[in-house]
Amino acid sequence: MPPKPFPQLSTDQENDLKLNTEQWALTNGLVMYPPNFDLHQVNVAPITLFPTPIPKTSFEQAIKVQKLYNELYINLITKRKDWLIDILQSLAEFDPDFSGKLFDVYQESITDGVLQPLSLGIFRSDYMVDSSEQQIKQIEFNTVSVSFGGLSTKIGQLQSFLNSTGFYDKKYNFRYYDEDELPISSSASDIAQGLADGNYFYNGEVANKDTIILFVVQPNERNCFDQRIIEYALFQEHGIRSFRVTLEDVDQMITKNNDKLYVKSTMDEISVVYYRSGYGPGDYDSNPTKTWNARLFLEKSQAIKCPSILTQLSGSKKIQQLLTNESVIKQTLPNIDDEELSSLLSTFVRILPFDDTEQGQEAAKLAFEKPENFVLKPQREGGGNNIYKQDIPAFLNKISKKDWGAYILMELINPETYRNKILRNGQTYHENIVSELGVFGTIVFDEQAGAIKSNKNAGWLLRSKFETSDEGGVAAGFGCVDNVYLY
Amino acid sequence: MPPKPFPQLSTDQENDLKLNTEQWALTNGLVMYPPNFDLHQVNVAPITLFPTPIPKTSFEQAIKVQKLYNELYINLITKRKDWLIDILQSLAEFDPDFSGKLFDVYQESITDGVLQPLSLGIFRSDYMVDSSEQQIKQIEFNTVSVSFGGLSTKIGQLQSFLNSTGFYDKKYNFRYYDEDELPISSSASDIAQGLADGNYFYNGEVANKDTIILFVVQPNERNCFDQRIIEYALFQEHGIRSFRVTLEDVDQMITKNNDKLYVKSTMDEISVVYYRSGYGPGDYDSNPTKTWNARLFLEKSQAIKCPSILTQLSGSKKIQQLLTNESVIKQTLPNIDDEELSSLLSTFVRILPFDDTEQGQEAAKLAFEKPENFVLKPQREGGGNNIYKQDIPAFLNKISKKDWGAYILMELINPETYRNKILRNGQTYHENIVSELGVFGTIVFDEQAGAIKSNKNAGWLLRSKFETSDEGGVAAGFGCVDNVYLY
Repeated sequence: MPPKPFPQLSTDQENDLKLNTEQWALTNGLVMYPPNFDLHQVNVAPITLFPTPIPKTSFEQAIKVQKLYNELYINLITKRKDWLIDILQSLAEFDPDFSGKLFDVYQESITDGVLQPLSLGIFRSDYMVDSSEQQIKQIEFNTVSVSFGGLSTKIGQLQSFLNSTGFYDKKYNFRYYDEDELPISSSASDIAQGLADGNYFYNGEVANKDTIILFVVQPNERNCFDQRIIEYALFQEHGIRSFRVTLEDVDQMITKNNDKLYVKSTMDEISVVYYRSGYGPGDYDSNPTKTWNARLFLEKSQAIKCPSILTQLSGSKKIQQLLTNESVIKQTLPNIDDEELSSLLSTFVRILPFDDTEQGQEAAKLAFEKPENFVLKPQREGGGNNIYKQDIPAFLNKISKKDWGAYILMELINPETYRNKILRNGQTYHENIVSELGVFGTIVFDEQAGAIKSNKNAGWLLRSKFETSDEGGVAAGFGCVDNVYLY
Repeated sequence: MPPKPFPQLSTDQENDLKLNTEQWALTNGLVMYPPNFDLHQVNVAPITLFPTPIPKTSFEQAIKVQKLYNELYINLITKRKDWLIDILQSLAEFDPDFSGKLFDVYQESITDGVLQPLSLGIFRSDYMVDSSEQQIKQIEFNTVSVSFGGLSTKIGQLQSFLNSTGFYDKKYNFRYYDEDELPISSSASDIAQGLADGNYFYNGEVANKDTIILFVVQPNERNCFDQRIIEYALFQEHGIRSFRVTLEDVDQMITKNNDKLYVKSTMDEISVVYYRSGYGPGDYDSNPTKTWNARLFLEKSQAIKCPSILTQLSGSKKIQQLLTNESVIKQTLPNIDDEELSSLLSTFVRILPFDDTEQGQEAAKLAFEKPENFVLKPQREGGGNNIYKQDIPAFLNKISKKDWGAYILMELINPETYRNKILRNGQTYHENIVSELGVFGTIVFDEQAGAIKSNKNAGWLLRSKFETSDEGGVAAGFGCVDNVYLY
């Protein structure tokens, strides 16, 4: 059955809806700092007015496969470390300024032995629903600094409120969507739970409220409320405090004693270093010596890192590409059953490397012959650097052939578009949007022994952007926070 | 034992505290629209950085006496209606443009019989603690549109969070205040409960979720988040929806059928008309015919009014003055016991009328001989019109002697001052402040039969202002929302 259409409201009703949306958002922290902000003033975060249709089967499959994905990625580190390290070393050559430096930090951090074998992953697997197959297809698997888990819960609560109070119905006083069609993501609470799990295992399986979580954040973070929502859940639901620091300020604010990390001003012991910064080269540029030293300083400690360097690097596109190979999966998840395997495989699109293999030769051919079906992505994480469709041949011609290996060629997904409405800076935009479903998961594991201490689902995120916009970063102003209407 | 001093923080610590205060406030709806606002952007509400000391005994007495005050005021209406109406008629003469018009609306609304004998009061009794007696003294009893019940809960939660997470301690990681020294006002939830009580009794003691609450609000309300917090609690905790309308828009948005009120667009039946506007002449000025007609239209219906006209008028200063007479109290609360009586009496300051009585003659004398001990207040509610101390003689000389009766002369209270810090528009002000403790109460009663259906405490509010400022309106920018530190 096709989804029901978006609510059809009169101009007065839509103005009412907009006012009620904005004031709910401002009362409940669905907010973001504007550019060049003052600390005491916020805007409503960019959001959709209505939830966007997602097939229920696709949504459920994405949720179901998450723990398998969590395990798949951490098994690369715990069960196939030599193989992984070989790959990361070759990645380092293509990207010496970032992947290379991360890898250096990793190597240096273990020279005197591994101080903390436990590792915490807070992951988000991003999908689009392919419109011809009605099947989720993975865009990328994010292993570091995954965002919008806080605001995702808030927009679910908002849209549920608007629906329950009748604002989506043209008769005003009826629910337009059934309650189970508009689920609320538990991500704010679940990500806090993930951090609490890290704290618990750091303390030898004791719920110690005296150790704290270090949030490593970007300076002047406009999306800090997304993080604050998690901080407050962590304190309210687990009694665990947190401390925010930028990479630039680590040496001034954080100290080490017997390999344990402490906040200098309070001597609070840090159980988990949670990176909401440090995921791209830009996070180190302000003062490279200082910021890279900070990363090494944190890494070389008994605190549990979220993520560890190896976990972060396992999120690179090269790994995603290698994991599309069935035999690689079977080696990485030796106990996978047939149903699980086919479930994983169904989420893949073709991803090709530019190397000497047969696949590599096919990539070089397809990039020039059928560029309209592909996107060219650099191997490291984070948006903003992709080359789309017809731009691919010219780009490849422009760069040296030896640098092609720094990219992978990925089949484009053809998502359904919907004419939802986006609310941004007080303006309503009515355009076709495409949506990306991100599923959160948390996992605590032993990088040395391979044991999985906990492996959990942690809610979801729907992010939407104008169809005309290729990049989807919400904070960058191209996209917005949305939620699912399951049909 | 004297209160402990305010936390003594280093500059860095105070900057930390300020940042954490602002971001908590913005994430949790402790916000207000700035002047000339856009709907999608808010400021942190004006607040104190620290809680302000209030003697525990004074606080407890103020809480304890609230239900007695609720009963005292509604008994004026239910048990002494003729007496009250006589007074209100003479008030109407002094203040024909407001009290007089309200009284006209009352009379007109009952010409065809009383359509709804039940009435809901949401009251706030305001006190200062007199520094010499260490005793609460009542400033005024507010019977209409009492505000800040929403934000008061929020600042309690904020200051409790800051204390629990160590931001008030110079060592950072310890609670500066004991937990029971920083109580959190339950006013947001309790005022919502009061509205739900009104809804319940409207529906013949059935928890009907199909009838709704009408919030009558001012156009361009900057303090709407204080109201929204109550709206959301009402929906979340009781499943009861609400609808906001200005007096100006009543005829366009609200309709009547068989004396019942309905929202035109949805045909939702209105159980309670909750006035957060209509308490001062300014609320009618935009279009007096339309707004006064709107008031009459709402009044003349089966909806429960919060407050009814008589309840609103019982909050005038003249009534407060008359209630300082012990025999008037005994007549109004015939069952009061000695302890309750002395508890009530202890909260009074001298309030004198300007009339032909002995008291009146004394007022005329004191106003000129000892003006420094008094404030001159107009008999109607709402701040901004008071004449203080040395300004009194000149003011009285300026107006015609026959208009003196529109004022009462009230003994000034000498409150303790504290050097707390006020945060406003991103700036911190470090000045002496004086604080006013408001205690909320809700009551459902039958104006005809006199029966009290429910009578409840509903939390509190501490509002502070610079000692140098005579007027305390938070929204007007003179004061700020605070909370108690009980010692």
